Formats: sequence, structure tokens, C-alpha cells
Amino acid sequence: MLDSVLAHIDDHLSSSLERLFALLSIESISTDPKYAGSCRTAAEWLTAELSAMGFHAEVRPTPGHPIVVGHHDGAGPHAMFYGHYDVQPVDPLELWETPPFEPRLVTVAGDRKVIAARGACDDKGQLMTFVEAARAWKDVTGSLPLAVTMLLEGEEESGSANLKPFLQANVGELKADVALICDTGMWSRERPAITTSLRGLVADEVTVSAANRDLHSGLFGGPARNPIHALAAVLAALHDDDGRVTLPGFYDGVDELPDEIRRQWAALDFDAAEFLADVGLSEPAGERGRSVLEMLWARPTCEVNGIVGGYVERGFKTVIPAKASAKVSFRLVGDQDPERVRASFRDFVRARLPADCSAEFTTYAGGRALSLPLDRAWIGHARTALADEWGVEPALIGGGGSIPVVADLKEVLGMDSLMVGFGLDDDRIHSPNEKYELSSFHGGIRSWARILAALAA
Amino acid sequence: MLDSVLAHIDDHLSSSLERLFALLSIESISTDPKYAGSCRTAAEWLTAELSAMGFHAEVRPTPGHPIVVGHHDGAGPHAMFYGHYDVQPVDPLELWETPPFEPRLVTVAGDRKVIAARGACDDKGQLMTFVEAARAWKDVTGSLPLAVTMLLEGEEESGSANLKPFLQANVGELKADVALICDTGMWSRERPAITTSLRGLVADEVTVSAANRDLHSGLFGGPARNPIHALAAVLAALHDDDGRVTLPGFYDGVDELPDEIRRQWAALDFDAAEFLADVGLSEPAGERGRSVLEMLWARPTCEVNGIVGGYVERGFKTVIPAKASAKVSFRLVGDQDPERVRASFRDFVRARLPADCSAEFTTYAGGRALSLPLDRAWIGHARTALADEWGVEPALIGGGGSIPVVADLKEVLGMDSLMVGFGLDDDRIHSPNEKYELSSFHGGIRSWARILAALAA
Repeated sequence: MLDSVLAHIDDHLSSSLERLFALLSIESISTDPKYAGSCRTAAEWLTAELSAMGFHAEVRPTPGHPIVVGHHDGAGPHAMFYGHYDVQPVDPLELWETPPFEPRLVTVAGDRKVIAARGACDDKGQLMTFVEAARAWKDVTGSLPLAVTMLLEGEEESGSANLKPFLQANVGELKADVALICDTGMWSRERPAITTSLRGLVADEVTVSAANRDLHSGLFGGPARNPIHALAAVLAALHDDDGRVTLPGFYDGVDELPDEIRRQWAALDFDAAEFLADVGLSEPAGERGRSVLEMLWARPTCEVNGIVGGYVERGFKTVIPAKASAKVSFRLVGDQDPERVRASFRDFVRARLPADCSAEFTTYAGGRALSLPLDRAWIGHARTALADEWGVEPALIGGGGSIPVVADLKEVLGMDSLMVGFGLDDDRIHSPNEKYELSSFHGGIRSWARILAALAA
Repeated sequence: MLDSVLAHIDDHLSSSLERLFALLSIESISTDPKYAGSCRTAAEWLTAELSAMGFHAEVRPTPGHPIVVGHHDGAGPHAMFYGHYDVQPVDPLELWETPPFEPRLVTVAGDRKVIAARGACDDKGQLMTFVEAARAWKDVTGSLPLAVTMLLEGEEESGSANLKPFLQANVGELKADVALICDTGMWSRERPAITTSLRGLVADEVTVSAANRDLHSGLFGGPARNPIHALAAVLAALHDDDGRVTLPGFYDGVDELPDEIRRQWAALDFDAAEFLADVGLSEPAGERGRSVLEMLWARPTCEVNGIVGGYVERGFKTVIPAKASAKVSFRLVGDQDPERVRASFRDFVRARLPADCSAEFTTYAGGRALSLPLDRAWIGHARTALADEWGVEPALIGGGGSIPVVADLKEVLGMDSLMVGFGLDDDRIHSPNEKYELSSFHGGIRSWARILAALAA
């Protein structure tokens, strides 16, 4: 039966691609309110697809962008698949080689085919690997190997503010035996991976104000306080010379890597130099004495993600601005408490402001880091299925990004998450020219078809 | 004769205002290329006005915005008046209480009338005080008390790149006995001033680059270099804890204030607390141990006038940007060499960049500081004329801003400049809601009418 499903997937790949392109054409940027209509369109499109496949599917309202929920019954265990239909902003637009919302298949490096579009990988391409796997099972057998609930949100790229309340309001409806999440990456183009840990995230914005208006630097320069200087001094103080974050208490709850994990990661033969060279870098910038994999998967960070103040257009304006602001985020590991980190950051800023400066803060996402229990049966099933598909044992890896829903599913619904995805390091997610390998899309569909069967066994 | 001219000025003030409003309505922002047409319109408008007054006036082309030159003969000495018809950008537009290019007379604080518009003070309002004074002399006497050349440029707010070459190319035509410049301020609403020193300026832009593209802070955060961090560290290092600029050699050529000047300034009864409180500040931010007037007029500064990097729109994006940039300027005093300061800044930045970061620089304005010889006869004539008009001795003050033309006129044409202006500290030049007091405009016209007579004596 599985063989027929896999053959069906191979035979109908171009139809699967057409559907993915339709979804990729929708400008569902969640963080910018002007794309709210497009987010709704993406939700409606997915609901229609699921309904056509026999799911009981609905666009469910939230105070923000809607959530798509679909149910399909089946024998055996009950799996919930989570994905998100929203995407990151596309600026700077001029760096895109093809328009971000006009998906196309591009041949690169001689013979590799890649899907080029915003969201090609994160997360529309990835979520459609699961949708198309389920569709193949339905087309070939008329049913699914197990009961499946689909949960597709539209605010993952802007903080998922409404997801947790939605889970809390629908515990009975949404609870399943295991969650399946396709928002992570492969170990390499040839070797799949299961992600067993994720970093958490705290995102905050600080605006430093000084004078009650912009000032001329000739008439006021010298005695007037410049909030850009105050902000730069605070940001520069966030790291010491060894690359460690200087916030008091920041490393509370951060443990050293267990020897077993350290050995596993060492066996991955990760080429740190190549990883950095691929993006034009040559030296790891993180904590002195840590390996690059450790920096990525097991160490917390502090990054300034945006800064703006004063005159930033073409030309020059000798202004001392009234305010300056920065968006700052922290990646968390172990038991770091997001709200304690946020509070420590704000205290740190306030304590360093010079006379006549004040700070205001805006709260963005916050979520804890997560580690999965490696002894669960479904992890073993997924390992076997992936090894069968790709001809090589999947790597058990950490994840440097944050998927807050994994923590929410655990906390609210008591569910663990199987994180399997087919992204690659060079997919340029969140950047111009995002892409998804055709081999990821195709192999991903086949992988989920196998995993569905394996979980039902 | 002078009395008739002054009476004529009083009787025709509303016509003078109408002409000023016409000039203020032209959006002559020089730093933004999209306003080039408006700059030309302003030049043509002024040329037509001067021609109508009997000047031989022309719009003279430059590689940038044109320069207006007008000549009028007369007996006795020959004065050149310099002004600029271009204005600063108007952002942030939403902070303007009335549209910046729809000038109007507004009554404030019960009974004071002010002219509200971009350029109301800097420099359209100020230059029109001289134009209207000359017009009154022509209307009443049919001639001017002395020969006058008008030189009105359109790039003062964007670096005056084409002014010096223009002076060099037209030495014979433009050389006069003294330059008159109306781009400075009064000491107070009641007391006029003659500015006897000006700070110089160096403006530079630095862009720090790291990775070859924007990176996702989950996938790369830790090992990836963040250019915002590198830039913030450099900017934070530009000042020490005492507010001194840390560039090597920065204070070369900066002398302590002569006792005589220190005494003169002390006698001005400057209220530093009120000066700061007016813009919402309470403590001088400059070099420890210096008075506020010293910080403004006699000490060099370093200011970050703009900074931008990463995601700065609404919402949050966990990006590690490929680059970040800052606009940085220095106010110079004494014999500081602009190009040595610029070179020292660039060396300072390069020396502090961490691995994988590079810096590119863009050159903006550079000009030396200037001090006038106080023993010239025309300074005495101007002091008398201003004292007659305002009923109080004019203050001899320093200027914190830069008027590069003053240095250029000295260097190229061998001319000293008499700097008399009628701006006030709260005129918000370069900021939203720029204004010019009606009393400055009216008193300014009367003052120039007197000064013209005094210089001819």
C-alpha cells in the first residue's frame, strides 16, 4: 500500500507543485497590518484544499489573523500537524532576483531545481509536504493511516500572540497523541534530520528619548544629550570582550552540554568554516571557547535586529534627534526564563541611561527553550521511516531558532512534538531570494507518507 | 533720509511679508534630488525680484542647484550680501502643526506674531530682511547707499559643494570690501548680536558590512557577526566618561578660551538652565568642567546624526542584517583641520572593527572654524547701527553652527564677513515647526537699512 502511495506522489508531483505555487502567490506577511487581507486569503485557500480532501476544515477567527483547523478521522493514534501560512516581510525588495510572490522553478548549479519565492521553505513549502502526503494517501486508499488534525496559524512570523489562547480555548478539540511539525531543516542535502531541541526567544524594543524635539547640532551640539549615543553605549555594553552577554542573571538556567549530546554532535562532521564561508564570514563571533554548533544550538544569544534614529535618508542633516530605538532579541536555552531575561534587559538599559534620557519598551514574543525526550516510540518510528526514504540514518540535531508553538503544545495540550523538516541552511529564509529545493519538496512529501504509515503501525 | 527709509519699511511691512510668503511656499529642499525643480524655481523667483529692484541679476548654473548673482552700483564701499534660498528636509512631517510649505502668520503666547514655515528663519526669512532693506532704500531714494552684490546659493543645507568653485571661477566679479551674512541669531528677543566666531564642520557616513546577506538570527545567531553590534561599539567608543571625544589628535589646534572672551561671555548673563529646559533637558551633556556657552561656541563636538540597520518597520523581524550605517559629524573650533579629523575618524572606525566586518565611508561637508578680527571699522559701524535700532548694545557672541561660506569668502576672495542675523534659539530651524518672529523680520529689515547707511558713511 505504501509503495502505491509513493508511486502516486512521484506521478503527481507537478500537480503538487501547482498547488504550492498558488499558495506562494498570496502575500501573507503577518507582521504588517496592510497584508491582513492576504493572510485571510491564504487561510481560506488552505481551508478549501483541506475540505476538498475530505477534512472537516474551517477558517477560525482570532483577534489577529485567522487559524485554519481541519479534522480527519482514522484508525489508531491521533496526530496533529502544525504549520503556518504567514511569511516574513520581503524588504529589501531590490535584492530579490525574482519577485517574492511570483513563485517559479529555477535551475541552479547546472542541474538542481529550486522553488524561488518568499515562504518557499518557511513555511508554505514545508507545510505543503504534509498536505500533499495526506492527499496521496486519500487519493490511493480513500482514507488516512491515522486520525489527523491540521492546525495552520497565520502569526508565526509576528509572535503568535493569538495561538496560545486559541489552544487554551479548544483543548478538547485539539488534543492528540503527538504533534508533527515541519518547520525545521535537514542535516544536509542528502541526510534528513529530527530536531530534538529548540532555542527560546525574547524580543523587545527600546526607544530612548532625550530632548523634547529634534535639535540642530550647530545650535545645541555639545550641551544637548544625543539619544543615539546613549542607545549605542547601552547596546555596546550588552556583550563583553569574550562574546558573553552581560545582563545580570542571563546565564541562570544555562547548563553545559551533556557529554552524550556533545559526542553525537561531534560525530555529525559539521564543517563550521564552510557554514560561515557560505554567508561570507570566516570567524565565529559568539562566545569564546565554544564550537559553532554549540553557539547555534546550546548557547543563548543577544542580537540587535534593528536600530534607527535621526536622519537616515540620502544626504546629510546635522540633527540631534529627540529619540532613537532598537529592536533586540535573545535566543534562550535550557531553563532560561523569558520574562526574567526581558526584565533584566530593561533594568540594564534603565541603569545605563545618562541624565535627561528615558526609555520606553515594547513587548514582542517570548518563549522558553525546549528539549524533547529521546526515548519516545514515535521518535523511533520516524527515524526508521526517514532512513527508509533517504537511505541514511537521520541526524538528531538541535535547532537554533524558536518554534514557540512546541512549548505551547506541551504546556497547554500536554503534547510532545516530532520536528521533521526539509529546509537547508542555504534556503535564505527571512532573507531575499528564499528558496526550497525541489528535492526537499518531493522527498518531504514521500517522507511524511512513510511517517504517517509508521506512526499508525 | 534714513528716517524716511525706516518709515517706508514700517508702512510697507505687509507687502514685504507677502513676498516672503511667496518664497517660503517653494519647496527648495536641496539635499533631496527630487526637489531640484523647486530649487530652480526659488532661484528664478529671487532673480526676478532683484531685477525688478534694478539689480543686474542672473540665475547662474552650477553642477548642482543654481546660484543667484545680482549687482547694483553705488558710491563708496562695495558690500557683498550672502544668503541661501535652500532649506532643510521637513521630516518627520507628522510633527508639523501647519504644513511646512504653507507659510502663515501665527499669534503665540497671547500677542507675539510669528511666521511659521520651513525656512521662515533659515534662511529665507533672514535673507529677505536684507532684500527688503535694499528695496526700501531704492523706493525712497532711487539708489543704494553703497554698491551691493547679492550672492544667493541653493546648497547651503547640503554641503555647498559648488559654491567654492563658483567663487574661484568668478573672483574678479564677486570680490567686494566686506561680506554681509544674515544666517545667525540675536542674543535675545530684545538684544541683537554680531557673531564673531563660528565652528567648523566635518560630516561623514560610515557603513559597516559583515555577512553577504541578511541572516535569520535563529539559524545563524551566535556565530554570525552582527554589524549593528560592531557599529554601536565604535560609536560608543567615540566619547569617554568625561564627554571628551576620543579620536587620536582630535584636540590638536583647540585652544583654551582667551580671558577677554571668557569675561565678555560671562557678562552676557546666559541662563544655561533655561536654555536646556526650553528643549526638555536639565544637564549639559558635553565635556565635564566646561560651561554651556563654551561647549556651544568654543569646544569641538562629535555627534551621531543618524543611524540605521536591520528591520526598522512596525513589528519584529529576527534578522541579523548584512550592514548598518551611521551619519557622524564633528563641530570644529580653533585650528582643527577638517580633513585630519575625517581621516582620524575613519582610522578609528577601521581599527575597532571585529573580524569579518568592513567599513565604507561617504564624504560630506568639511570646513574649518573661523574667528573674526574685532578691530575692523565696519564692525564698529554695525555695532552703532544695531544699538540705534534696538536701543541696546549688540552682544558679541560665538556661533555653534557652521557657515562654510565665511571661510570660503576669506580664502578665495580675501573678504571678512559681518555676521548679523535675527534668529532666536527657539526658532526650531532644521526641526518641525520652524518659525521666525515678526519682530525679527521687521527689526531685521530696519537694522539692515541702518547698517547700509552706516557702512557707506
